[in-house]
Amino acid sequence: MDLWFTESDMKTYGLVFKIKKTLYVGKSKYQTVAVFETVDMGRLLVLDGLVMSCEYDEFAYHEMIAHVPLYTHPSPENVLIIGGGDGGTVREVVKHDIVKSVDLVEIDEEVIKVTKEYLPVLGSAFDSPKLNIHIGDGIEYVKDTDKRYDVIIVDGSDPVGPAVGLFSESFYRDCYERLKEDGIMVAQTETPYDVNLRVHVPQIYKNIRKVFPDTRMYIANVACYPSGMWSFAFATKKYDPIKDFQGVRYEKDGFKLKYYNDQIHKACFILPNFVRDFIDG
Amino acid sequence: MDLWFTESDMKTYGLVFKIKKTLYVGKSKYQTVAVFETVDMGRLLVLDGLVMSCEYDEFAYHEMIAHVPLYTHPSPENVLIIGGGDGGTVREVVKHDIVKSVDLVEIDEEVIKVTKEYLPVLGSAFDSPKLNIHIGDGIEYVKDTDKRYDVIIVDGSDPVGPAVGLFSESFYRDCYERLKEDGIMVAQTETPYDVNLRVHVPQIYKNIRKVFPDTRMYIANVACYPSGMWSFAFATKKYDPIKDFQGVRYEKDGFKLKYYNDQIHKACFILPNFVRDFIDG
Repeated sequence: MDLWFTESDMKTYGLVFKIKKTLYVGKSKYQTVAVFETVDMGRLLVLDGLVMSCEYDEFAYHEMIAHVPLYTHPSPENVLIIGGGDGGTVREVVKHDIVKSVDLVEIDEEVIKVTKEYLPVLGSAFDSPKLNIHIGDGIEYVKDTDKRYDVIIVDGSDPVGPAVGLFSESFYRDCYERLKEDGIMVAQTETPYDVNLRVHVPQIYKNIRKVFPDTRMYIANVACYPSGMWSFAFATKKYDPIKDFQGVRYEKDGFKLKYYNDQIHKACFILPNFVRDFIDG
Repeated sequence: MDLWFTESDMKTYGLVFKIKKTLYVGKSKYQTVAVFETVDMGRLLVLDGLVMSCEYDEFAYHEMIAHVPLYTHPSPENVLIIGGGDGGTVREVVKHDIVKSVDLVEIDEEVIKVTKEYLPVLGSAFDSPKLNIHIGDGIEYVKDTDKRYDVIIVDGSDPVGPAVGLFSESFYRDCYERLKEDGIMVAQTETPYDVNLRVHVPQIYKNIRKVFPDTRMYIANVACYPSGMWSFAFATKKYDPIKDFQGVRYEKDGFKLKYYNDQIHKACFILPNFVRDFIDG
């Protein structure tokens, strides 16, 4: 019997994965959470029918969402992650000795539980002493907290279902307010290359740019996301990702990474014309 | 009725396209040639069940295979294209005023005929006065010709069927011999990111490096190829793609491109760690 997984919003083009086994399917308060064992790409975490992480290539997404801001900021001691319940971003963030404390605000406790049980490669840092897990709505959290952060990473799912508010101007404004005066926000901003755009990417950038003085897009190649081109917004109050790159700290840390390196840090901000025109045109 | 196209060699992971209409299917002497009208990604050229070009994103592949070598070489007057029967590479090459003559060696006349009729966006330069079309085997052509080229572009299909010899050391050696002493060869080298690897990518690089003194990989993001990450070998006798980049000519030419720009020219040679390790490790 051949079992193939297809994303639930795929209308005219997309990726399919051959599945060996369904490891978990359950309904949380917010969404359907599923884990599949693929034939040769490891395990697949799926929320409401959309691929969140695939063991085969999740390193690309998680390294790039974490290390680009953390190696731009000279002292990213306090980090906030909104979403990120699959643990991949936390795993990368806590690798930095300079990071003292990480707050993770995930709306859906089930995602964390399922990750811990079925995706240990992703969930390996959930027991880090630096980590504080808050189960709750990230939008409410940034509205209400008194804490101030050096770096905020918005690692939400696609803008359908519970994550839709994570792409709004008011949310980005609250993030801005919760950042210290030299803070950096990075947010996943979908693909600019897919005909089945889940959201109008230029609108996300308009929203962020109403709030932050300097916002740029950077790109990572993630094989298991549609088109393979995934984008992130780098929104900064003070530090420039190229000029202020902490190359020295990068060399000293020297932990093993599969995607990110000092040259990628700069090259990822170089955009093909059609992408540049799409967000700046 | 829903009609979906899936690549014929897809075993466990891949792309699918929803099809509005089958425009052409025919058997040539070498392969099955098909053109489909997709629902919203334009037309799809398929050879032996493998996607060659999709109107939606073919610009990425064709601009990157053509302009990277042509803007490295200071005077690429004579260009040879092996394969490239879909016309996309020729279309980009003849944009350069400095290019005086282009030889295109395509083994399968049917591909050119079908492209002319069904894919005019790709085939728009087949009537260029600079172009000489040779119907024949590229492997034999580079063995036998007396001509010498500034740039050779190997734009063959995947290494199954008629194109398999285009990845061999002996073919690359013949290309080397047909290049002038400061010549450049660029070849498409599949994706380093796909579990369904059609060929052992490191072996391709070993083969080229036995012949050329300097061979590097560069990358383009092509949405309609598996993983979205497509690689090219830049094999050069003399010119360095970064140090010898003809930025001045690039600025003067100023034709409209959708993917390539002067910054991409440099950034495309920056590889994620896993890709660097894959070919150099």
